[in-house]
Amino acid sequence: MAHWKVVIEYDGTDFSGWQIQPNGRTVQEEVEKALQQITGSPVRIAGGGRTDSGVHARGQVATFSLEKAVSAGDLRRSLNGVLPEDVVVHSAEEVEERFHARFSASARNYVYTIAVGGTAIDRRTAWNCPYRLDADILRQGAAKVLGEHDFTSFAKVGSETDHGRCRVTRSEWTFDGDRWRYHVRSDRFLYGMVRALVGTMVDMARGYRPLEEWDAIVAARQRRLAGTAAPACGLCLVSIEY
Amino acid sequence: MAHWKVVIEYDGTDFSGWQIQPNGRTVQEEVEKALQQITGSPVRIAGGGRTDSGVHARGQVATFSLEKAVSAGDLRRSLNGVLPEDVVVHSAEEVEERFHARFSASARNYVYTIAVGGTAIDRRTAWNCPYRLDADILRQGAAKVLGEHDFTSFAKVGSETDHGRCRVTRSEWTFDGDRWRYHVRSDRFLYGMVRALVGTMVDMARGYRPLEEWDAIVAARQRRLAGTAAPACGLCLVSIEY
Repeated sequence: MAHWKVVIEYDGTDFSGWQIQPNGRTVQEEVEKALQQITGSPVRIAGGGRTDSGVHARGQVATFSLEKAVSAGDLRRSLNGVLPEDVVVHSAEEVEERFHARFSASARNYVYTIAVGGTAIDRRTAWNCPYRLDADILRQGAAKVLGEHDFTSFAKVGSETDHGRCRVTRSEWTFDGDRWRYHVRSDRFLYGMVRALVGTMVDMARGYRPLEEWDAIVAARQRRLAGTAAPACGLCLVSIEY
Repeated sequence: MAHWKVVIEYDGTDFSGWQIQPNGRTVQEEVEKALQQITGSPVRIAGGGRTDSGVHARGQVATFSLEKAVSAGDLRRSLNGVLPEDVVVHSAEEVEERFHARFSASARNYVYTIAVGGTAIDRRTAWNCPYRLDADILRQGAAKVLGEHDFTSFAKVGSETDHGRCRVTRSEWTFDGDRWRYHVRSDRFLYGMVRALVGTMVDMARGYRPLEEWDAIVAARQRRLAGTAAPACGLCLVSIEY
């Protein structure tokens, strides 16, 4: 019995998210199917970050145990041989049994991409945001996110969580020509949090509501006070740290 | 009568290239249809670079004349309103009548992207190259391309051209993590030239044939001596200079 950690990239466009569900194609299901095809036995995997429908990942992590002995290189190549073209395994390594994709994680990194002025080529991985945005307000919004706060106002209503506190250790916009990217790193994320943060910052940066409302939104701990979630296609889980 | 220059981005995946042809969806046709829809009259456009089936563009240029008076901002917005989602107009400006997208061009810039180790998210815009490549040989191959040479050996057989000489003023690989990119700038390009250059460099960098054959390939002026064309999806027309 060997315990494995794999790093996975996927194009979330045609997936109903990571986690297996009764209806809809999920990444977890595709990877479990691929593992069963390779090993001949059903395999249950744990994911490091639950990505929502339409959200992408360049560095999703999954852990699982295999009865069958296999080398890391062979496991990676076999998986890539049977996985569909919108999922790629970048690495596989044996880890200790207590290592868990989700519970062992110390931080996750997401990036949200806006294509200012629209894009054809990257329309599946960037938000074609139709508004004229004030970069300085985006910067100030990102500064408000940094630090330890209760982000309940940015969590999807109905999502289960014991508390809303997250310690955000990076929250920054970068401006590379017409690609504006929001980079955020935290010890944990609430469900839907990054998209709600971006949606709220964009509302302020386009002049729809003032930045001064930020503290009141956070203090209220009510999702309806924050802005509409930014579209899923712009979001990508970049990496998980352990 | 006003003469216009527009800069166009398109995802080449679902196009049979730029130029109108009897069978297959082309970018030129989509833009002409959009112009006819906006102006009510048939409009014929000239493109700055003929991209092949499956090749992308971030900075294609087209010129055309319109009877109807319109502002640059309105023209851009109207076009984007009717164009399909895989074509975006980034700018529109009035130019002198003698300005021609193709004949006025002084240089074109292409980039070819290889995803080392594979990619799911960027599989439509990068070559998932299955070989292990020697970066140093790619660098040496690129150095051979630089300067003025007869590139007939890298032109598609049957393509019409009066001569094969091109003055290449940039020819360089950059290595950004697992994205390896070939940047090439020239006063002109022969049909299929960039993909043949990349295919030949890759043949050498994967150890399939020696770099020492380069000069003989060029001297022979025969397409069959160069390597197989690299896949269209990795190529992008970045910009055209005037």
